Amino acid sequence: MKTQEKDSRDIVPEPTVKRLPLYLHFLKKAKENGVLTISAPIIGQELEQDPTQVVKDLAYTGVKGRPRVGYNIYELIKGIEEFLGFNQVYDAFLVGAGNLGSALINYPEFRSFGFKIIAAFDISDDVVGTQRGDVNVLHFNVFKELASKLKVRIGILTTPAKVAQEVAEQMAKAGIRAIWNFTPVKLKLPEGVIVQNTSMYSNVAVLVMKLNNQLKKNKD
Amino acid sequence: MKTQEKDSRDIVPEPTVKRLPLYLHFLKKAKENGVLTISAPIIGQELEQDPTQVVKDLAYTGVKGRPRVGYNIYELIKGIEEFLGFNQVYDAFLVGAGNLGSALINYPEFRSFGFKIIAAFDISDDVVGTQRGDVNVLHFNVFKELASKLKVRIGILTTPAKVAQEVAEQMAKAGIRAIWNFTPVKLKLPEGVIVQNTSMYSNVAVLVMKLNNQLKKNKD
Repeated sequence: MKTQEKDSRDIVPEPTVKRLPLYLHFLKKAKENGVLTISAPIIGQELEQDPTQVVKDLAYTGVKGRPRVGYNIYELIKGIEEFLGFNQVYDAFLVGAGNLGSALINYPEFRSFGFKIIAAFDISDDVVGTQRGDVNVLHFNVFKELASKLKVRIGILTTPAKVAQEVAEQMAKAGIRAIWNFTPVKLKLPEGVIVQNTSMYSNVAVLVMKLNNQLKKNKD
Repeated sequence: MKTQEKDSRDIVPEPTVKRLPLYLHFLKKAKENGVLTISAPIIGQELEQDPTQVVKDLAYTGVKGRPRVGYNIYELIKGIEEFLGFNQVYDAFLVGAGNLGSALINYPEFRSFGFKIIAAFDISDDVVGTQRGDVNVLHFNVFKELASKLKVRIGILTTPAKVAQEVAEQMAKAGIRAIWNFTPVKLKLPEGVIVQNTSMYSNVAVLVMKLNNQLKKNKD
Protein backbone atom coordinates (compact mmCIF):
# COMPACT_ATOMS: atom_id res chain seq x y z
CA MET A 1 0.00 0.00 0.00
CA LYS A 2 1.32 3.43 -0.91
CA THR A 3 2.53 5.74 1.85
CA GLN A 4 0.42 8.55 0.49
CA GLU A 5 -2.74 6.55 1.00
CA LYS A 6 -1.79 5.62 4.52
CA ASP A 7 -1.16 9.22 5.45
CA SER A 8 -4.42 10.46 4.04
CA ARG A 9 -6.24 7.70 5.88
CA ASP A 10 -4.87 8.95 9.17
CA ILE A 11 -6.42 12.38 8.77
CA VAL A 12 -9.67 11.50 6.99
CA PRO A 13 -12.63 13.23 8.67
CA GLU A 14 -15.17 10.92 10.33
CA PRO A 15 -18.12 12.39 8.34
CA THR A 16 -16.30 11.33 5.16
CA VAL A 17 -15.78 7.81 6.53
CA LYS A 18 -19.49 7.66 7.34
CA ARG A 19 -20.49 8.81 3.84
CA LEU A 20 -18.21 6.46 1.91
CA PRO A 21 -20.29 3.32 2.66
CA LEU A 22 -23.37 5.18 1.41
CA TYR A 23 -21.59 6.04 -1.84
CA LEU A 24 -20.46 2.44 -2.05
CA HIS A 25 -24.00 1.13 -1.62
CA PHE A 26 -25.33 3.48 -4.28
CA LEU A 27 -22.47 2.73 -6.69
CA LYS A 28 -22.97 -1.02 -6.39
CA LYS A 29 -26.65 -0.59 -7.19
CA ALA A 30 -25.79 1.63 -10.17
CA LYS A 31 -23.26 -0.96 -11.36
CA GLU A 32 -25.94 -3.66 -11.20
CA ASN A 33 -28.08 -1.44 -13.40
CA GLY A 34 -25.36 -1.34 -16.01
CA VAL A 35 -23.83 2.07 -15.28
CA LEU A 36 -20.15 2.21 -16.35
CA THR A 37 -19.14 5.79 -15.51
CA ILE A 38 -20.64 8.23 -13.09
CA SER A 39 -20.07 11.90 -12.21
CA ALA A 40 -19.82 13.58 -8.82
CA PRO A 41 -22.91 15.77 -9.49
CA ILE A 42 -24.99 12.65 -10.20
CA ILE A 43 -23.77 10.95 -7.03
CA GLY A 44 -24.42 14.18 -5.14
CA GLN A 45 -27.92 14.50 -6.53
CA GLU A 46 -28.81 10.93 -5.62
CA LEU A 47 -27.46 11.17 -2.10
CA GLU A 48 -28.32 14.82 -1.49
CA GLN A 49 -24.71 15.86 -1.05
CA ASP A 50 -22.98 18.90 -2.43
CA PRO A 51 -20.97 17.75 -5.52
CA THR A 52 -17.87 19.54 -4.20
CA GLN A 53 -18.15 17.48 -1.02
CA VAL A 54 -18.54 14.31 -3.09
CA VAL A 55 -15.34 15.12 -5.02
CA LYS A 56 -13.51 15.82 -1.75
CA ASP A 57 -14.73 12.60 -0.14
CA LEU A 58 -13.81 10.47 -3.13
CA ALA A 59 -10.38 12.10 -3.44
CA TYR A 60 -9.39 10.37 -0.19
CA THR A 61 -9.63 7.02 -1.94
CA GLY A 62 -7.05 8.09 -4.51
CA VAL A 63 -9.40 7.32 -7.42
CA LYS A 64 -9.63 10.18 -9.92
CA GLY A 65 -12.52 11.11 -12.14
CA ARG A 66 -12.00 12.31 -15.73
CA PRO A 67 -13.40 15.66 -16.91
CA ARG A 68 -16.76 15.29 -18.72
CA VAL A 69 -16.70 11.53 -18.17
CA GLY A 70 -16.63 11.09 -14.44
CA TYR A 71 -15.45 8.10 -12.50
CA ASN A 72 -15.06 4.58 -13.80
CA ILE A 73 -17.58 2.84 -11.55
CA TYR A 74 -15.51 -0.36 -11.16
CA GLU A 75 -12.39 1.58 -10.16
CA LEU A 76 -14.39 3.72 -7.78
CA ILE A 77 -16.04 0.76 -6.02
CA LYS A 78 -12.71 -1.01 -5.69
CA GLY A 79 -11.05 2.21 -4.50
CA ILE A 80 -13.62 2.84 -1.76
CA GLU A 81 -13.54 -0.78 -0.61
CA GLU A 82 -9.76 -0.77 -0.37
CA PHE A 83 -9.69 2.61 1.31
CA LEU A 84 -12.19 1.53 3.97
CA GLY A 85 -10.37 -1.75 4.46
CA PHE A 86 -13.43 -3.71 3.31
CA ASN A 87 -11.28 -5.87 1.05
CA GLN A 88 -10.06 -7.69 4.15
CA VAL A 89 -12.46 -9.27 6.62
CA TYR A 90 -11.98 -9.09 10.39
CA ASP A 91 -13.43 -11.81 12.59
CA ALA A 92 -15.71 -10.51 15.33
CA PHE A 93 -17.17 -11.93 18.53
CA LEU A 94 -20.57 -10.81 19.73
CA VAL A 95 -21.57 -10.84 23.41
CA GLY A 96 -25.25 -10.83 24.33
CA ALA A 97 -27.26 -13.11 22.05
CA GLY A 98 -30.65 -11.54 22.73
CA ASN A 99 -32.89 -10.04 20.06
CA LEU A 100 -30.54 -7.30 18.96
CA GLY A 101 -27.54 -9.61 19.01
CA SER A 102 -29.40 -12.16 16.91
CA ALA A 103 -30.44 -9.45 14.47
CA LEU A 104 -26.84 -8.35 14.01
CA ILE A 105 -25.65 -11.92 13.51
CA ASN A 106 -28.18 -12.26 10.72
CA TYR A 107 -27.59 -8.80 9.29
CA PRO A 108 -26.97 -9.05 5.57
CA GLU A 109 -23.73 -7.91 3.99
CA PHE A 110 -21.68 -7.09 7.09
CA ARG A 111 -19.06 -9.29 5.53
CA SER A 112 -18.74 -7.00 2.54
CA PHE A 113 -18.25 -4.14 5.01
CA GLY A 114 -15.13 -5.57 6.54
CA PHE A 115 -16.13 -7.96 9.25
CA LYS A 116 -17.78 -11.25 10.03
CA ILE A 117 -19.31 -12.42 13.30
CA ILE A 118 -17.83 -15.89 13.87
CA ALA A 119 -19.22 -16.66 17.33
CA ALA A 120 -21.69 -15.31 19.86
CA PHE A 121 -21.49 -15.50 23.65
CA ASP A 122 -24.01 -15.32 26.44
CA ILE A 123 -24.43 -16.58 30.01
CA SER A 124 -28.09 -17.61 29.87
CA ASP A 125 -28.81 -21.34 29.78
CA ASP A 126 -31.70 -20.56 27.44
CA VAL A 127 -29.41 -19.51 24.61
CA VAL A 128 -25.99 -21.05 25.27
CA GLY A 129 -25.67 -24.07 22.99
CA THR A 130 -28.17 -22.76 20.42
CA GLN A 131 -27.42 -21.38 16.95
CA ARG A 132 -28.20 -18.13 15.13
CA GLY A 133 -27.93 -18.87 11.44
CA ASP A 134 -24.60 -20.68 11.25
CA VAL A 135 -23.18 -18.94 14.33
CA ASN A 136 -22.97 -20.86 17.62
CA VAL A 137 -23.86 -19.27 20.95
CA LEU A 138 -21.15 -20.24 23.45
CA HIS A 139 -20.81 -19.60 27.18
CA PHE A 140 -19.04 -16.33 27.95
CA ASN A 141 -16.56 -18.16 30.18
CA VAL A 142 -14.73 -19.43 27.08
CA PHE A 143 -14.60 -15.96 25.46
CA LYS A 144 -11.08 -15.07 26.58
CA GLU A 145 -9.52 -18.38 25.60
CA LEU A 146 -11.12 -18.35 22.14
CA ALA A 147 -10.43 -14.66 21.47
CA SER A 148 -6.74 -15.19 22.26
CA LYS A 149 -6.48 -18.39 20.28
CA LEU A 150 -8.24 -16.96 17.20
CA LYS A 151 -6.72 -13.46 17.60
CA VAL A 152 -10.15 -11.82 17.40
CA ARG A 153 -9.87 -8.02 17.53
CA ILE A 154 -13.50 -6.84 17.20
CA GLY A 155 -16.14 -7.28 19.90
CA ILE A 156 -19.81 -6.40 19.57
CA LEU A 157 -21.54 -5.53 22.82
CA THR A 158 -25.27 -6.21 22.92
CA THR A 159 -25.65 -7.19 26.59
CA PRO A 160 -28.04 -5.64 29.09
CA ALA A 161 -26.72 -2.23 30.21
CA LYS A 162 -26.01 -3.35 33.75
CA VAL A 163 -23.24 -5.79 32.75
CA ALA A 164 -21.87 -3.78 29.80
CA GLN A 165 -18.87 -2.21 31.57
CA GLU A 166 -17.79 -5.52 33.09
CA VAL A 167 -18.11 -7.43 29.80
CA ALA A 168 -16.24 -4.67 27.93
CA GLU A 169 -13.36 -4.90 30.41
CA GLN A 170 -13.22 -8.67 29.91
CA MET A 171 -13.19 -8.11 26.16
CA ALA A 172 -10.24 -5.71 26.45
CA LYS A 173 -8.35 -8.20 28.65
CA ALA A 174 -8.94 -10.89 26.01
CA GLY A 175 -7.21 -8.79 23.36
CA ILE A 176 -10.23 -7.12 21.73
CA ARG A 177 -9.06 -3.80 20.26
CA ALA A 178 -12.34 -2.38 18.94
CA ILE A 179 -15.76 -2.58 20.61
CA TRP A 180 -19.02 -1.77 18.87
CA ASN A 181 -21.19 -0.73 21.78
CA PHE A 182 -24.99 -0.93 21.44
CA THR A 183 -25.66 -0.35 25.13
CA PRO A 184 -26.37 3.14 26.45
CA VAL A 185 -23.40 2.80 28.84
CA LYS A 186 -20.41 5.12 28.42
CA LEU A 187 -17.62 2.54 28.58
CA LYS A 188 -14.39 3.25 30.45
CA LEU A 189 -11.56 1.24 28.96
CA PRO A 190 -7.77 1.30 28.78
CA GLU A 191 -6.33 3.68 26.21
CA GLY A 192 -5.97 2.07 22.81
CA VAL A 193 -9.30 0.26 22.89
CA ILE A 194 -11.52 1.79 20.20
CA VAL A 195 -15.19 2.20 21.09
CA GLN A 196 -17.86 2.88 18.49
CA ASN A 197 -21.23 3.71 20.07
CA THR A 198 -24.53 3.11 18.33
CA SER A 199 -27.08 4.50 20.72
CA MET A 200 -30.60 3.61 19.71
CA TYR A 201 -31.89 5.92 22.42
CA SER A 202 -29.99 8.95 21.11
CA ASN A 203 -31.47 8.40 17.69
CA VAL A 204 -34.94 8.03 19.14
CA ALA A 205 -34.47 11.23 21.11
CA VAL A 206 -33.63 13.23 18.00
CA LEU A 207 -36.56 11.73 16.10
CA VAL A 208 -39.12 12.37 18.84
CA MET A 209 -37.81 15.88 19.44
CA LYS A 210 -38.06 16.81 15.75
CA LEU A 211 -41.56 15.37 15.53
CA ASN A 212 -42.63 17.30 18.64
CA ASN A 213 -41.30 20.53 17.15
CA GLN A 214 -43.06 19.96 13.86
CA LEU A 215 -46.40 19.03 15.34
CA LYS A 216 -46.23 22.08 17.60
CA LYS A 217 -45.40 24.39 14.71
CA ASN A 218 -48.37 23.10 12.76
CA LYS A 219 -50.62 23.70 15.74
CA ASP A 220 -49.39 27.29 16.30
CA MET B 1 -45.79 24.74 28.48
CA LYS B 2 -43.82 27.95 28.81
CA THR B 3 -42.98 29.92 25.67
CA GLN B 4 -39.37 30.14 26.76
CA GLU B 5 -39.05 26.36 26.72
CA LYS B 6 -40.60 26.06 23.30
CA ASP B 7 -38.24 28.64 21.82
CA SER B 8 -35.14 27.05 23.27
CA ARG B 9 -36.29 23.67 21.98
CA ASP B 10 -36.40 25.03 18.44
CA ILE B 11 -32.74 25.95 18.45
CA VAL B 12 -31.29 23.18 20.57
CA PRO B 13 -28.21 21.67 18.88
CA GLU B 14 -28.55 18.04 17.77
CA PRO B 15 -25.45 16.93 19.76
CA THR B 16 -27.19 18.19 22.90
CA VAL B 17 -30.34 16.24 22.04
CA LYS B 18 -28.21 13.15 21.54
CA ARG B 19 -26.45 13.57 24.89
CA LEU B 20 -29.56 14.22 26.96
CA PRO B 21 -30.77 10.56 26.85
CA LEU B 22 -27.31 9.49 28.05
CA TYR B 23 -27.52 11.90 30.98
CA LEU B 24 -31.02 10.60 31.63
CA HIS B 25 -29.86 6.99 31.67
CA PHE B 26 -27.02 7.80 34.06
CA LEU B 27 -29.22 9.93 36.33
CA LYS B 28 -31.86 7.21 36.62
CA LYS B 29 -29.17 4.73 37.65
CA ALA B 30 -27.78 7.20 40.20
CA LYS B 31 -31.29 7.79 41.56
CA GLU B 32 -31.74 4.04 41.99
CA ASN B 33 -28.52 4.06 44.00
CA GLY B 34 -29.99 6.63 46.37
CA VAL B 35 -28.31 9.78 45.03
CA LEU B 36 -30.42 12.89 45.78
CA THR B 37 -28.33 15.73 44.34
CA ILE B 38 -25.62 15.68 41.70
CA SER B 39 -23.20 18.24 40.26
CA ALA B 40 -22.28 18.94 36.64
CA PRO B 41 -18.60 17.97 37.22
CA ILE B 42 -19.69 14.55 38.54
CA ILE B 43 -21.99 13.98 35.56
CA GLY B 44 -19.19 15.17 33.28
CA GLN B 45 -16.67 12.84 34.87
CA GLU B 46 -18.97 9.84 34.54
CA LEU B 47 -19.86 10.51 30.92
CA GLU B 48 -16.51 12.00 29.87
CA GLN B 49 -17.99 15.37 29.03
CA ASP B 50 -16.60 18.77 29.80
CA PRO B 51 -18.53 20.10 32.87
CA THR B 52 -19.15 23.40 31.07
CA GLN B 53 -20.81 21.46 28.25
CA VAL B 54 -22.91 19.53 30.78
CA VAL B 55 -24.14 22.79 32.33
CA LYS B 56 -24.95 24.15 28.86
CA ASP B 57 -26.79 20.99 27.83
CA LEU B 58 -28.84 20.85 31.02
CA ALA B 59 -29.67 24.57 30.83
CA TYR B 60 -31.85 23.79 27.79
CA THR B 61 -34.20 21.81 30.04
CA GLY B 62 -34.80 24.89 32.21
CA VAL B 63 -33.74 23.02 35.38
CA LYS B 64 -31.21 24.97 37.44
CA GLY B 65 -28.52 23.59 39.73
CA ARG B 66 -27.67 25.27 43.04
CA PRO B 67 -24.11 26.42 43.83
CA ARG B 68 -22.17 23.86 45.93
CA VAL B 69 -25.18 21.53 45.94
CA GLY B 70 -25.81 20.74 42.31
CA TYR B 71 -29.01 19.55 40.74
CA ASN B 72 -31.91 17.91 42.53
CA ILE B 73 -31.85 14.57 40.75
CA TYR B 74 -35.65 14.15 40.66
CA GLU B 75 -36.16 17.61 39.17
CA LEU B 76 -33.41 17.00 36.65
CA ILE B 77 -34.80 13.64 35.47
CA LYS B 78 -38.28 15.11 35.15
CA GLY B 79 -36.87 18.18 33.37
CA ILE B 80 -34.98 16.14 30.77
CA GLU B 81 -37.94 13.82 30.17
CA GLU B 82 -40.28 16.76 29.65
CA PHE B 83 -37.82 18.60 27.47
CA LEU B 84 -37.29 15.60 25.22
CA GLY B 85 -41.01 14.91 25.07
CA PHE B 86 -40.55 11.52 26.72
CA ASN B 87 -43.40 12.21 29.12
CA GLN B 88 -45.78 11.57 26.25
CA VAL B 89 -45.70 8.39 24.19
CA TYR B 90 -46.13 8.29 20.41
CA ASP B 91 -47.49 5.19 18.76
CA ALA B 92 -45.26 3.79 16.03
CA PHE B 93 -45.69 1.31 13.17
CA LEU B 94 -42.77 -0.82 12.05
CA VAL B 95 -42.43 -2.17 8.51
CA GLY B 96 -40.18 -5.16 7.88
CA ALA B 97 -40.54 -7.79 10.60
CA GLY B 98 -37.24 -9.56 9.94
CA ASN B 99 -34.49 -9.96 12.50
CA LEU B 100 -33.75 -6.30 13.01
CA GLY B 101 -37.42 -5.39 13.08
CA SER B 102 -38.10 -8.08 15.67
CA ALA B 103 -35.16 -6.88 17.75
CA LEU B 104 -36.52 -3.34 17.77
CA ILE B 105 -40.01 -4.52 18.71
CA ASN B 106 -38.50 -6.29 21.70
CA TYR B 107 -36.06 -3.50 22.54
CA PRO B 108 -36.42 -2.62 26.19
CA GLU B 109 -37.43 0.83 27.39
CA PHE B 110 -38.27 2.48 24.07
CA ARG B 111 -41.51 3.40 25.77
CA SER B 112 -39.72 5.50 28.36
CA PHE B 113 -37.97 7.25 25.45
CA GLY B 114 -41.15 8.58 23.92
CA PHE B 115 -42.58 5.92 21.68
CA LYS B 116 -44.16 2.52 21.51
CA ILE B 117 -44.36 0.13 18.56
CA ILE B 118 -48.01 -0.90 18.42
CA ALA B 119 -47.99 -2.97 15.21
CA ALA B 120 -45.58 -4.46 12.69
CA PHE B 121 -46.12 -4.98 8.96
CA ASP B 122 -44.61 -7.25 6.35
CA ILE B 123 -45.57 -8.87 3.07
CA SER B 124 -44.09 -12.33 3.61
CA ASP B 125 -46.52 -15.16 4.31
CA ASP B 126 -43.95 -16.57 6.71
CA VAL B 127 -44.34 -13.74 9.19
CA VAL B 128 -47.75 -12.12 8.50
CA GLY B 129 -50.11 -13.38 11.18
CA THR B 130 -47.37 -14.13 13.71
CA GLN B 131 -46.52 -12.20 16.87
CA ARG B 132 -43.36 -10.54 18.21
CA GLY B 133 -43.84 -10.23 21.95
CA ASP B 134 -47.33 -8.71 22.18
CA VAL B 135 -47.08 -7.01 18.78
CA ASN B 136 -48.94 -8.51 15.81
CA VAL B 137 -47.39 -8.72 12.36
CA LEU B 138 -50.01 -7.58 9.83
CA HIS B 139 -49.98 -7.47 6.04
CA PHE B 140 -48.60 -4.21 4.65
CA ASN B 141 -51.74 -3.73 2.56
CA VAL B 142 -53.65 -2.62 5.68
CA PHE B 143 -50.92 -0.17 6.75
CA LYS B 144 -52.50 2.95 5.26
CA GLU B 145 -55.97 2.28 6.62
CA LEU B 146 -54.71 1.57 10.14
CA ALA B 147 -52.22 4.45 10.20
CA SER B 148 -54.97 6.89 9.23
CA LYS B 149 -57.50 5.44 11.65
CA LEU B 150 -55.06 5.38 14.59
CA LYS B 151 -53.32 8.64 13.56
CA VAL B 152 -49.90 7.01 13.77
CA ARG B 153 -47.12 9.52 13.07
CA ILE B 154 -43.92 7.47 13.47
CA GLY B 155 -42.80 4.75 11.07
CA ILE B 156 -39.80 2.48 11.53
CA LEU B 157 -38.27 1.20 8.31
CA THR B 158 -36.46 -2.14 8.58
CA THR B 159 -37.25 -3.56 5.15
CA PRO B 160 -34.73 -4.84 2.60
CA ALA B 161 -32.98 -1.91 0.91
CA LYS B 162 -34.56 -2.56 -2.46
CA VAL B 163 -38.11 -1.75 -1.31
CA ALA B 164 -37.18 0.98 1.20
CA GLN B 165 -37.97 4.00 -1.01
CA GLU B 166 -41.33 2.60 -2.09
CA VAL B 167 -42.38 1.67 1.46
CA ALA B 168 -41.27 5.08 2.76
CA GLU B 169 -43.42 6.81 0.13
CA GLN B 170 -46.40 4.70 1.17
CA MET B 171 -45.73 5.62 4.79
CA ALA B 172 -45.72 9.33 3.95
CA LYS B 173 -48.99 8.96 2.01
CA ALA B 174 -50.52 7.24 5.04
CA GLY B 175 -49.79 10.27 7.24
CA ILE B 176 -46.49 9.18 8.81
CA ARG B 177 -44.54 12.33 9.69
CA ALA B 178 -41.28 10.85 11.02
CA ILE B 179 -39.43 7.83 9.65
CA TRP B 180 -36.65 6.04 11.48
CA ASN B 181 -34.70 4.55 8.61
CA PHE B 182 -32.45 1.53 9.25
CA THR B 183 -31.83 0.81 5.57
CA PRO B 184 -28.76 2.20 3.80
CA VAL B 185 -31.05 3.95 1.29
CA LYS B 186 -31.09 7.74 1.16
CA LEU B 187 -34.85 8.33 1.17
CA LYS B 188 -36.43 11.00 -1.00
CA LEU B 189 -39.65 12.19 0.55
CA PRO B 190 -41.97 15.21 0.44
CA GLU B 191 -40.82 18.15 2.54
CA GLY B 192 -42.08 17.95 6.09
CA VAL B 193 -41.42 14.24 6.52
CA ILE B 194 -38.66 13.84 9.11
CA VAL B 195 -36.11 11.11 8.43
CA GLN B 196 -33.73 9.85 11.09
CA ASN B 197 -31.10 7.50 9.66
CA THR B 198 -29.38 4.83 11.70
CA SER B 199 -26.87 3.34 9.31
CA MET B 200 -25.28 0.22 10.70
CA TYR B 201 -22.87 0.24 7.79
CA SER B 202 -21.61 3.77 8.48
CA ASN B 203 -20.87 2.78 12.06
CA VAL B 204 -19.09 -0.36 10.90
CA ALA B 205 -17.04 1.67 8.46
CA VAL B 206 -15.77 4.00 11.17
CA LEU B 207 -14.97 1.08 13.48
CA VAL B 208 -13.08 -0.93 10.86
CA MET B 209 -11.20 2.16 9.64
CA LYS B 210 -10.05 3.08 13.16
CA LEU B 211 -8.98 -0.49 13.85
CA ASN B 212 -7.03 -0.61 10.57
CA ASN B 213 -5.24 2.61 11.48
CA GLN B 214 -4.36 1.40 14.93
CA LEU B 215 -3.10 -2.00 13.85
CA LYS B 216 -0.99 -0.32 11.17
CA LYS B 217 0.48 2.16 13.65
CA ASN B 218 1.44 -0.66 16.00
CA LYS B 219 3.10 -2.47 13.13
CA ASP B 220 5.11 0.57 11.99
